[in-house]
Amino acid sequence: MPRYRFILEYDGTDFLGWQTQGAGARTVQGTLEAALARLAGGAVEVTGAGRTDAGVHAEGQVASAAFEVALCAAELRRALNALLPEDLAVVACDVVPDAFHPRRDARAKLYRYAVWNGPVRSPLRRRRSHAVAAPLDVAAMARAAGAFEGRHDFASLRSAGSGVQTTERTLYRCAVEGHAGTEVRLLVEGSGFLRHMVRTLAGTLLEVGLGRRGPDGMAALLAARDRAAAGPTAPACGLTLVRVAWGPGPAGGVSSTNPGA
Amino acid sequence: MPRYRFILEYDGTDFLGWQTQGAGARTVQGTLEAALARLAGGAVEVTGAGRTDAGVHAEGQVASAAFEVALCAAELRRALNALLPEDLAVVACDVVPDAFHPRRDARAKLYRYAVWNGPVRSPLRRRRSHAVAAPLDVAAMARAAGAFEGRHDFASLRSAGSGVQTTERTLYRCAVEGHAGTEVRLLVEGSGFLRHMVRTLAGTLLEVGLGRRGPDGMAALLAARDRAAAGPTAPACGLTLVRVAWGPGPAGGVSSTNPGA
Repeated sequence: MPRYRFILEYDGTDFLGWQTQGAGARTVQGTLEAALARLAGGAVEVTGAGRTDAGVHAEGQVASAAFEVALCAAELRRALNALLPEDLAVVACDVVPDAFHPRRDARAKLYRYAVWNGPVRSPLRRRRSHAVAAPLDVAAMARAAGAFEGRHDFASLRSAGSGVQTTERTLYRCAVEGHAGTEVRLLVEGSGFLRHMVRTLAGTLLEVGLGRRGPDGMAALLAARDRAAAGPTAPACGLTLVRVAWGPGPAGGVSSTNPGA
Repeated sequence: MPRYRFILEYDGTDFLGWQTQGAGARTVQGTLEAALARLAGGAVEVTGAGRTDAGVHAEGQVASAAFEVALCAAELRRALNALLPEDLAVVACDVVPDAFHPRRDARAKLYRYAVWNGPVRSPLRRRRSHAVAAPLDVAAMARAAGAFEGRHDFASLRSAGSGVQTTERTLYRCAVEGHAGTEVRLLVEGSGFLRHMVRTLAGTLLEVGLGRRGPDGMAALLAARDRAAAGPTAPACGLTLVRVAWGPGPAGGVSSTNPGA
């Protein structure tokens, strides 16, 4: 039974996150599984690279499923896009070895957190960015962000309720770009992430940008290993899973996954 | 009674256009008038610079109204933004001479028409751009677009039902930018526009980009003065009113309107 890999783009606004929940909950996984079931003529189970929360977007989420279908990968992609709703699309599709697992095999994931820093809220940006009206000190945010790069215990930045073995993770990149008064973006690339970790990082760096927290307290924040030491969890609408990378190579440079079909 | 000028941003997806219609129709004008009526304690009539159609967006629509309110312009802007729904905002507000009329006094308006030309539809771009999957010949589109610059009779490009005196208009700029396979944008700046003119221009240039129409037939298209000579009216979702300019000055360079408050 062939195994397929899908690169997915979605507008997370109207999804209750990635993971299939109880009946009636509109999730990305559930919506994709329903479309695949129609094509495969039976239940199909999909695995994803990252369990994005309700409201979080993706430009390059990766998913995988094994099933039989009388279509080549390009035909499968087109058939799925005809069945999927307008806020979810399969950007690419290819056949992978059966051992492929999107989460276990991912070498790195890149997330972007977008903040609209204009003095007035922006109707056209509201679905993709979190609005903060007071001018941000972007240089202070960038300095603070740098402290999170490397291998650290990120227990201070995760929400409760995730039964992980260890809270150590490696960030290859944690950078802030953009200008006060326009869009300010946080780019975070790492081997793996704890629950709400990027959004808590964003909430903490926003406190730095607003002058409520000094840019040099990040090492102490990590050392505390206490969620109360960090800032609030920033809203989901600003977060986008940009891409997932596999295989060996310099950790810093995630090459875009771009399968054939 | 002071007269105010408003610069408006809106996501047109869920509005039935600018102009107030029968009861129950959610329009930009009607939504703004309702918020102003609450602040002014009585009916307020709003005039706009351009009557955008259902689904058309604005980054810099301009509107005006005369009424009494015990707030300075900056306070009025904040109060309005607290009352308006999330898909409509007042970006700026100032007091103007009573003779000011947003449409009559406008020197130029700039519109942008966005096309997503990727091979797969894009959920994250779907609300702001029209999707065309086949690769566009952007150079041919740009060449064809240039033929519309200057003063012409645009009768071939307008929809029926507009009781205008003349169909002559001046375009200061009609340009195509971007690259096939990504986003391709049409920028059109003119002294005034006929009904559906920018969208019909976009539909015609897309036919050029798809090779269904030669890039050198634009002069003949204009000379025909016949709507049947042009291409289809492109969908509203791709269109954005970018900005409106007033006063004297070189026509080609619209300076952004940026009142104080």
